[in-house]
Amino acid sequence: MASSFHEFDLIQWIREQCPSAKANLIGIGDDTAILQPPLNSELLFATDMLMEGTHFTFPPATPERAGRKALAVNISDLAAMAGQPHSALISLALPKSRGPEFAKAIMQGIIDLAKEFSIQLIGGDTNSWDGPLVINVAIIGIAPASKSIKRSGAIPGDWIFVTGELGGSLTGHHLNFTPLVSEALILNQAVAIHSMVDLSDGLASDLQHILRESNVGALLDATSIPISSRVSENESKQTRLQHALSDGEDFELLFTVSPEDGKQLLSQNPLPTKITQIGEITSRQTAFIQHPDGSQTSLEDSGWKHEL
Amino acid sequence: MASSFHEFDLIQWIREQCPSAKANLIGIGDDTAILQPPLNSELLFATDMLMEGTHFTFPPATPERAGRKALAVNISDLAAMAGQPHSALISLALPKSRGPEFAKAIMQGIIDLAKEFSIQLIGGDTNSWDGPLVINVAIIGIAPASKSIKRSGAIPGDWIFVTGELGGSLTGHHLNFTPLVSEALILNQAVAIHSMVDLSDGLASDLQHILRESNVGALLDATSIPISSRVSENESKQTRLQHALSDGEDFELLFTVSPEDGKQLLSQNPLPTKITQIGEITSRQTAFIQHPDGSQTSLEDSGWKHEL
Repeated sequence: MASSFHEFDLIQWIREQCPSAKANLIGIGDDTAILQPPLNSELLFATDMLMEGTHFTFPPATPERAGRKALAVNISDLAAMAGQPHSALISLALPKSRGPEFAKAIMQGIIDLAKEFSIQLIGGDTNSWDGPLVINVAIIGIAPASKSIKRSGAIPGDWIFVTGELGGSLTGHHLNFTPLVSEALILNQAVAIHSMVDLSDGLASDLQHILRESNVGALLDATSIPISSRVSENESKQTRLQHALSDGEDFELLFTVSPEDGKQLLSQNPLPTKITQIGEITSRQTAFIQHPDGSQTSLEDSGWKHEL
Repeated sequence: MASSFHEFDLIQWIREQCPSAKANLIGIGDDTAILQPPLNSELLFATDMLMEGTHFTFPPATPERAGRKALAVNISDLAAMAGQPHSALISLALPKSRGPEFAKAIMQGIIDLAKEFSIQLIGGDTNSWDGPLVINVAIIGIAPASKSIKRSGAIPGDWIFVTGELGGSLTGHHLNFTPLVSEALILNQAVAIHSMVDLSDGLASDLQHILRESNVGALLDATSIPISSRVSENESKQTRLQHALSDGEDFELLFTVSPEDGKQLLSQNPLPTKITQIGEITSRQTAFIQHPDGSQTSLEDSGWKHEL
């Protein structure tokens, strides 16, 4: 009757877009979702909150792309564990001024990516306010019991690899990237991955997670770091390297394997994506980068840090 | 060195406050948390986002109370399923102007309530921006397999009960309430609960969830609705009833049981809290309320609706 559009209408619309699909899972429609967990599996949980003005702006982002990114960054966390996405909970703080079509467009971006990755939306919370858009996703993944890849398994001598190319994500990649779920699963089948993270804050920062949790150090080879063509060719060599080390939001995978497995990956890359050996794990507990002239400098923790 | 306070420092502080405790659960410190689910259990998932200016304002709220409320409303969703809280993921959008002590105070409110309910904080996402405070909680609960109480189990003839008293929550209750987890578990042991919800949007609105999911109706008795002393005595009888029906944020439990179980509950209330029979489930598919003069009016869906 009225043209006003309520939370319940949006939820009803979402339910129609997302028929229940998974076995042993009851989704939207109760106070909570209910999952009877599969035997011999472990469950993975992560959450990320994306805010307008910080993680995306309109334009260049569209509401669909903002919604897609909010889910994609969470899927990327599962990929970093070599987990399989399963289900997700979506919370929205919607700007009142933008109306229900904006809300649906955000959800459409989420729903489309959810379908691509067989993720069932099992709950959420929709609100509106006078503030900017905020999207929170909490994601649930599944892996065979004890098979998730942690940050803490790196050992001295491990070779450090990275997928794809790094830097310049803000030119568009951060709104378009596809999380590397199947790539992580393929790698995890091909070799024994000792440790892995996804690159969200930047190589220099995210590598530190592996080093801290594993109590090890690293020596990177400056000339090996794969710099993305998204980083301007007009910049100096040093500036281009800095972009690759610290731009953030690459959402590539950084992982370590034994030298034997490393050689195997170099001789026969099981992925359709490029992988590059960029250095080695050391026992020194600090990270250094070796330059073409043979000098080594400390790899500053120069990635993106959220200052409070 | 610098006085700046970063995301990683806050996460480190949170890790120190919340030592890992639960079996088969790896919490903060990796791309995701990892849970090896207990056998013969089902997992429950819910999420709620609270925004400054909508769900709390400073004052009367303190940062501790805002944090506490964000977790409490999620725990209440688990109570409504007769589930046991297990773990939670916390996302924050922190106003830059308020600094790190404000962030810690919010987390302290969350951590204190988490300890009360044996909830392990297993992950999250902290951000800062120029906008108001936003807190998102995603909660994980556990129940014995197939023992969660759904909204869909009400049958005609069921007696409708409510715990506690309703209305006037905004005078302070919404910042102080204790989620009724143990009450739900005790009720679920004492009788066969057919359906249950927690009262977050208001009785008139939340009862509709049970009616819709169960394909039934209801007849409420106006004189039986327990009106909270938080609702001013100076208001008319009709206005006071309206507050009890639609104020929202009571976080009491609304549930239905067979008449036999209802009689048992009335003769021997197993809870330290008051419970009241407020009506019956009918087959009419609509909700009516019976007034002292014997007339019946349609129970308007007069609870809080979030308009987008």
